[in-house]
Amino acid sequence: LKSKLPHVGPTIFSVMTQLANEHNAINLSQGFPDFTCPASLIERVNFYMKRGDNQYAPMAGLPILQQQIAAKVDNLYHLTLNAAEEVTITSGATEALFCAIQTVIKLGDEVIVFDPSYSYEPAIILAGGKAVHLPLITPDYHIDWEAVRQSVNSRTRLIIINSPHNPTGAVLTADDLQQLSQIVDKNDLFVLSDEVYEHIIFDQQSHQSVLRYPDLYQRCFVVFSFGKTYHVTGWRVGYCIAPPILTSEFRKVHQFVTFDITTPLQYGLADFMKSDPQHYLNLPRFYQQKRDLFCRLLANSKFTLVPSQGTYFQLLEYSNISEQGDVDYAKTLTVEAGIAAIPISVFAKQPIEKKYLRFCFAKDDTTLTKAAAILTLL
Amino acid sequence: LKSKLPHVGPTIFSVMTQLANEHNAINLSQGFPDFTCPASLIERVNFYMKRGDNQYAPMAGLPILQQQIAAKVDNLYHLTLNAAEEVTITSGATEALFCAIQTVIKLGDEVIVFDPSYSYEPAIILAGGKAVHLPLITPDYHIDWEAVRQSVNSRTRLIIINSPHNPTGAVLTADDLQQLSQIVDKNDLFVLSDEVYEHIIFDQQSHQSVLRYPDLYQRCFVVFSFGKTYHVTGWRVGYCIAPPILTSEFRKVHQFVTFDITTPLQYGLADFMKSDPQHYLNLPRFYQQKRDLFCRLLANSKFTLVPSQGTYFQLLEYSNISEQGDVDYAKTLTVEAGIAAIPISVFAKQPIEKKYLRFCFAKDDTTLTKAAAILTLL
Ligand SMILES: CSCCC(=O)C(=O)O
Ligand SMILES: CSCCC(=O)C(=O)O
Repeated sequence: LKSKLPHVGPTIFSVMTQLANEHNAINLSQGFPDFTCPASLIERVNFYMKRGDNQYAPMAGLPILQQQIAAKVDNLYHLTLNAAEEVTITSGATEALFCAIQTVIKLGDEVIVFDPSYSYEPAIILAGGKAVHLPLITPDYHIDWEAVRQSVNSRTRLIIINSPHNPTGAVLTADDLQQLSQIVDKNDLFVLSDEVYEHIIFDQQSHQSVLRYPDLYQRCFVVFSFGKTYHVTGWRVGYCIAPPILTSEFRKVHQFVTFDITTPLQYGLADFMKSDPQHYLNLPRFYQQKRDLFCRLLANSKFTLVPSQGTYFQLLEYSNISEQGDVDYAKTLTVEAGIAAIPISVFAKQPIEKKYLRFCFAKDDTTLTKAAAILTLL
Repeated sequence: LKSKLPHVGPTIFSVMTQLANEHNAINLSQGFPDFTCPASLIERVNFYMKRGDNQYAPMAGLPILQQQIAAKVDNLYHLTLNAAEEVTITSGATEALFCAIQTVIKLGDEVIVFDPSYSYEPAIILAGGKAVHLPLITPDYHIDWEAVRQSVNSRTRLIIINSPHNPTGAVLTADDLQQLSQIVDKNDLFVLSDEVYEHIIFDQQSHQSVLRYPDLYQRCFVVFSFGKTYHVTGWRVGYCIAPPILTSEFRKVHQFVTFDITTPLQYGLADFMKSDPQHYLNLPRFYQQKRDLFCRLLANSKFTLVPSQGTYFQLLEYSNISEQGDVDYAKTLTVEAGIAAIPISVFAKQPIEKKYLRFCFAKDDTTLTKAAAILTLL
């Protein structure tokens, strides 16, 4: 069997989590909370399972969940959606990203991605496309829109953006979205906007969802994650919002990729959103406290840092501590210090500043305190 | 946006279920039970959710679930698997089918599928391949292996088989698997074996899993479904068994399609399999009683039938009742008689005998009795 993804191994998230488990390390690598969701959410899911709601959901999602999502979007981003035609429930954000890419990309099409970024490239390759990597500009990891303009050619079909940004914590501004709008309009491109950390944004900034820009939205697939918002990364429920014409093609793919999503989880999530529609308003404060705690506790360490602006990740620069490359140093840190983190070079095709690791601070304060104490001793 | 699947609409399962709901019809179309799983299975899932097991599972699946599956395969098909390297948990059988096809098929590759069959073709097209449709031979819907041999050419890469067979209920025999083995060996092909109805087989026949044939298995992706076995089609948990070398490529795709599968469901299923490892032994008797009931109650109707040999589907021939094509008649039956069924022409590319509908008998006896009473009046 000839590999379609010859250069792909297990994701760094699997690799580091496994290494963390083997060495009993504090796992700040793969992005997941070590706390769980509100008890009432689990009670609702259990209610529906016991009631017998265990058969197929509609392919696009339960209407009541689609409607709750539309209500939230209206409330938060002031965009009125047709829930039935613009919201599709997916197997986590992962499936939404995969299906959006499969929907748009044909053989030879080019996709602009930014370095470092989450691993969108394998899905692009499987669709027959080619990722064109543009570096984010340090120190604040902003997009060089002039470079984007210069990279667009007749084969370019899609630009993938991600804000708040994994792994750097950078956030896009209103000006960024203006620039994006102009480029995609002028060149007839689509946008895949990964907004899974929409509610995890700090220092009173407001998330610049593409949903805030009705014209831009017409060209967008926008991807969200219940896992990140309700602390249930292992439930595998996300969603994709796109205009009807794009959604209808997206669903042709989705219906042969997973068909539909776990029914009792959809019912439970719909109930929970209805009973506590603004639960997400707690998230910025909740995670900012953790970011601040983690950064403060590291103030006397040899790591250097710029506080993350969003996501539950913090980059730490370690050049005062080790000469190792980041992949090696991540392993050393796991094995010898008992702290697992993610080397950020794996998020980039082009060589980047190699002295950063990414730490997940979606952890109980005691875990963060323990980890920071160890890191401060290095 | 130019469609990658221009000829694809919502699946017939979605269409007919929606029509059934709109007309308050008895829904014997889409294949799902109207009963639920054992209460203890739900209790286990709830236990793990409450315990906080709501974060990512390992990408390939929970080791304890992989091990239970391997134990079952050993017990049932006498094949010893390396659970960690040969079992991958997927988002239902749908994702397993999709990933297996994506793993094997490249631009221009051909896949042999049989008509009528489940809708494998869109996944083949998305992978850049071409489905070559061979008719099953009536009246018993057997495979014409000579026709298969003649269809194999240098572009052929994969043969998709499905036993027990949706929608006809036909089952493959040991002789069929011998023929298949010879062809794939001689021509260096792969096999995708859809065995989601492995436990729903009647009249003391034993399911001819490709897993019973160790040499053949070396070329196989074998797809199973917890949904069918435990009456939880809406949970979206299935699995793919394949030799390590194939599994390793399969997982490269899976990890970018869905990444992993709902953690508390995997824990609950593993516990349940452990506590009641041969639960599936009840299924043939359980469903045969339903098949027999449904067929007996229709004995005085104008429908003609040959009892299904496996799956929870029964074909009924209706040429004594209506001249309509099967798609139209399925709609008429739903709207006017209040019974929804699936027209089988949609399972075929080539024109086939157009006078059959498929009825799902995974329903409470009272539902089947009510449906049969209505059908007998026609
Ligand atoms: C799907 S595992 C990856 C989790 C994650 O989003 C991350 O750690 O960046
Ligand atoms: C994924 S919905 C299809 C259900 C099914 O297997 C069938 O009805 O044939």
